Amino acid sequence: MIYFDNSATTKPYKEVLDSFIKVSSEYYGNPSSLHGMGGQAERLLKQAREQIAQLMNVQHNEIYFTSGGTESNNLAIKGTALMHRNRGRHIITTAVEHASVSETIAQLRDLGYRITIIPPDSSGIVSAEDIEKEITSETILVSVMHVNNEIGTIQPINEIGKLLKKHSKIVFHVDDVQGIGKVPLDLYEANVDLCTISAHKFHGLKGNGALYIRDGIRLSPLFSGGNQEWKQRSGTENVAGIVAMAKALRLTMNNKEKFLDRLLSIKKLLMEELGKMEDITVHTPESHSAPHIINFSIKGFKAEVFVHALEEKGIYVSTTSACSSKKAAASSTLIAIGVPEKDAKSAIRVSLTYGNSLEEAATFIVAVKETVNRLREVMK
Amino acid sequence: MIYFDNSATTKPYKEVLDSFIKVSSEYYGNPSSLHGMGGQAERLLKQAREQIAQLMNVQHNEIYFTSGGTESNNLAIKGTALMHRNRGRHIITTAVEHASVSETIAQLRDLGYRITIIPPDSSGIVSAEDIEKEITSETILVSVMHVNNEIGTIQPINEIGKLLKKHSKIVFHVDDVQGIGKVPLDLYEANVDLCTISAHKFHGLKGNGALYIRDGIRLSPLFSGGNQEWKQRSGTENVAGIVAMAKALRLTMNNKEKFLDRLLSIKKLLMEELGKMEDITVHTPESHSAPHIINFSIKGFKAEVFVHALEEKGIYVSTTSACSSKKAAASSTLIAIGVPEKDAKSAIRVSLTYGNSLEEAATFIVAVKETVNRLREVMK
Repeated sequence: MIYFDNSATTKPYKEVLDSFIKVSSEYYGNPSSLHGMGGQAERLLKQAREQIAQLMNVQHNEIYFTSGGTESNNLAIKGTALMHRNRGRHIITTAVEHASVSETIAQLRDLGYRITIIPPDSSGIVSAEDIEKEITSETILVSVMHVNNEIGTIQPINEIGKLLKKHSKIVFHVDDVQGIGKVPLDLYEANVDLCTISAHKFHGLKGNGALYIRDGIRLSPLFSGGNQEWKQRSGTENVAGIVAMAKALRLTMNNKEKFLDRLLSIKKLLMEELGKMEDITVHTPESHSAPHIINFSIKGFKAEVFVHALEEKGIYVSTTSACSSKKAAASSTLIAIGVPEKDAKSAIRVSLTYGNSLEEAATFIVAVKETVNRLREVMK
Repeated sequence: MIYFDNSATTKPYKEVLDSFIKVSSEYYGNPSSLHGMGGQAERLLKQAREQIAQLMNVQHNEIYFTSGGTESNNLAIKGTALMHRNRGRHIITTAVEHASVSETIAQLRDLGYRITIIPPDSSGIVSAEDIEKEITSETILVSVMHVNNEIGTIQPINEIGKLLKKHSKIVFHVDDVQGIGKVPLDLYEANVDLCTISAHKFHGLKGNGALYIRDGIRLSPLFSGGNQEWKQRSGTENVAGIVAMAKALRLTMNNKEKFLDRLLSIKKLLMEELGKMEDITVHTPESHSAPHIINFSIKGFKAEVFVHALEEKGIYVSTTSACSSKKAAASSTLIAIGVPEKDAKSAIRVSLTYGNSLEEAATFIVAVKETVNRLREVMK
């Protein structure tokens, strides 16, 4: 089996599952409980928070645990919008965000917020200057993803952050679900206020994520209740999942050291070989793109047909983001960068992780060629 | 060890952890993915939904998965408030709700909603008539818990639901986190529209819960995004946790058949023996109370001191709800039923589960007596 759908979800590391089981079965106390079993759980939670903070180069009191990327993005955006509703109701975002950002912002539009959506260039990159032009005294939030989940484009987060430093009241949110562990981002240097991560994208467990909330930033909570997570996110903490997430992030960062070069070689091979093939258009840009996502269209085939044909050969890829893949609609990112709808509906996303090999990539290229030829035969 | 803090959290069943590991390691696909690994995960999700629906005697399309009780309560209340904000902004609740209900409603008050809080009688019971008196044309939501988490009182959900049937536009939400698996509740018969459950309260895993949303009821989502869970709750589903929750609920329901009588015997023993002891006041009412929660005060001791003294004997109990236990404040339920603040600050909650035995209860009674005597000695 060749699993090239790592931007949809990754296989949890064995060590991650081991940690989960150990904590769930031996340290199952509620971290809010006064007794020693609560204290044990609380200490594990604290350690995990410190580990994640260290790996993200921030302070431990800036890491807030959530149920995943979607919650973190909703908390960041709605929490800011509600917190600062009396200061202003203007939000700036881009045309290439994940649905958990774009749909959240659309919900706020329905509640009376004004939204500006910045279009990207043909590589999927938005310009910091375009964002600056739209800033008004009403602007409370700018939300820009780090690495695009469909084509892998890296946004100029540093540049945007430095520009926003002049507007100290605007909250800067970055969805880094696809970037963390793959593309470095210094949150302090880039002046980021809020940053989303999701464990199951880096070999942790589904149902776990975090939001970095810069010291001093306050949000209106999505979950009110027992006031866990410094009142920003109530609910009994999923201690075992959080410990597992810390382990997953540490192992991913270690693997980055060891295998990033290999990942880059795989990407280079795929981009080159796919680029040479007739009727294939590669949408992922050569530069300013992440090491693990390659998006391309095959003229004349519906992507879904191609996904299933590759699956028959034991190769797992996707059409677009996982959560959009069952909709008939074309990838919103491809449409935003000017790909014609017909080609966008033929788009395949290959997404890699550190466990992948050059051999798998070579096998994949052969499989694509065979599949194109076979399907052409069938269609004749 | 005697673990009598099961209303804070329970130990996951071994079978629950086994299911979690199997799904996480073998069926880790994203259920939204088009390929077969996505399909496998989607089927597991569907099965788990059907199992939970069956165990709750509702339809499978009425079960929505969340990250736990706090999320379910927030989704139910905020989702209703936002959905019907143009129809009315009046909410009725009780003075004895869990913080994830009362704090959520308080947040809505700050946003301009009018809130009516119904006081309970001295047993902790609210009256259906008292609720009816407060209904106006502006009322959109009534939120009443089933089993109180601090003293175990059972609310007249059937009666309230029947009364609300006359007011078909009012949404009826029930927090059943402490009731499910312990105290029967027929959601259809009781005319309940929304019902919250949490997996880690019945030997499932932290980070998993569900909201029953009656067919036809729509909520404004807390999480926007990829439109999972029929657009009511976006985010990649925690398939392994959900499968584990289904297993936990099934095992709990089986254990209810086998061990409910024993649980009732334990409760009876504890209520009687504690009731006989000098300086102890039992707050849990004799009738209309759940089989697993016993709350009592010991005159003259701070509850925290007592919790730690029992812990030295290997017995784990709590002072109040877990999430409130580190605050200095007295139990809000005890204050609401008229217990003087001083006594409320001496309150101990014992919370049982089906694994507990009469021997444990007998040991506990001896330990309480010894501890009272020892602490009295120390204080002389």
